[in-house]
Amino acid sequence: MINLDINIDKSLVVLSGGQDSTTVLYYAKKQHKEVEVITFFYNQRHKKEIVRATRIANFANVPINIVNAEFINKLSISALTRDIPISQEKGELPNTFVDGRNLFFLSMAAVTAKQKGINVIYTGVSQSDYSGYPDCRRGFIDSLERTLCLGMDYNFSIVTPLMNLSKKQEVGMAVSLGPECMKAIGMSWTCYEGGEKPCGECPACVLRQKGFEAAGVKDPALIEY
Amino acid sequence: MINLDINIDKSLVVLSGGQDSTTVLYYAKKQHKEVEVITFFYNQRHKKEIVRATRIANFANVPINIVNAEFINKLSISALTRDIPISQEKGELPNTFVDGRNLFFLSMAAVTAKQKGINVIYTGVSQSDYSGYPDCRRGFIDSLERTLCLGMDYNFSIVTPLMNLSKKQEVGMAVSLGPECMKAIGMSWTCYEGGEKPCGECPACVLRQKGFEAAGVKDPALIEY
Repeated sequence: MINLDINIDKSLVVLSGGQDSTTVLYYAKKQHKEVEVITFFYNQRHKKEIVRATRIANFANVPINIVNAEFINKLSISALTRDIPISQEKGELPNTFVDGRNLFFLSMAAVTAKQKGINVIYTGVSQSDYSGYPDCRRGFIDSLERTLCLGMDYNFSIVTPLMNLSKKQEVGMAVSLGPECMKAIGMSWTCYEGGEKPCGECPACVLRQKGFEAAGVKDPALIEY
Repeated sequence: MINLDINIDKSLVVLSGGQDSTTVLYYAKKQHKEVEVITFFYNQRHKKEIVRATRIANFANVPINIVNAEFINKLSISALTRDIPISQEKGELPNTFVDGRNLFFLSMAAVTAKQKGINVIYTGVSQSDYSGYPDCRRGFIDSLERTLCLGMDYNFSIVTPLMNLSKKQEVGMAVSLGPECMKAIGMSWTCYEGGEKPCGECPACVLRQKGFEAAGVKDPALIEY
């Protein structure tokens, strides 16, 4: 039933504006003639990431699709009204965080990709360092890929170049992708805080630093700012 | 990895306000102590269906969750700006219709269900009379069910009582579910037009009439109005 035609000239990269998806963008640029990115707006904190994603897309000279996904937050907010205790461990997501965020992002990316005749979708999810999130695991991505193909009668391929890489290996990949990729990573935003510069102390900052340290590479973000 | 605990006392029914989902609601009410419904607001025409869905939920004495899903329409509208020719065959969905509508509805239903400790989700999709829609087929539903379980580390069961029934058989099911179900179906809205009464001529009205005629049953909507 599924059309097996696939256009490998084009791809769509889910770009959050962080280190992972920026690395994946440059990986995709090596593989495909035409690359577009898609980024999702879904909360206040995310605005900084949207700005960075746009800056990175412009720097990489690829079209950016900015899609409102605030419904994800509203599904979440609705939890607040339902007698569910709210809690947040330091560095963890609050328990109002909506499950299946990648389900929605990748589904919206798929609808967009199909409209553009694109079959190949990239995402920077990894099951190495973030195994706590079920929607970052390959088993989920495989199942979603099949679901999207069946649900839209279209041939989608979800590519996950970072799936089994450590943060150290990811930095190595970025270095091998060349100085443009490293410059773009210098523009990426990882920090959980909303400051002018990365705080250097939140779990996201610490994880990023550890990766660069392990790879023996200076984080280009620290050179830029 | 997946938690196999399942609470069969509760269920969540995706209720559009039409004949199919109303029948499914009464089917679910026979199976579970507690039933809630979820309905999605996503465009102008749909407002009438929301009103009907609310009326049916109140009549059936079940809580209704009304969720904004206008992003689906916006994903669609965005197609209009992308050099895709717009066309609409009589009675068909326009080609700006967003793929994977049931993907989004069932995913949002799943997030809501998990928040409420519900495992069982009902939908009125059928592959008998609407085989043109890939996201109404059992193969898609099976794959989505697995994807949702993997993506949220939670045990979802998507039940589709109408999947392989003809419209005639569906009317027979509604009759067997009793007079309350038939009264609720009298409140349901199927017509594509926005008039005070069903137009009786659009493909949805014609399909509905044929089902009742084949079953030898008078459409309760025609009695009520």
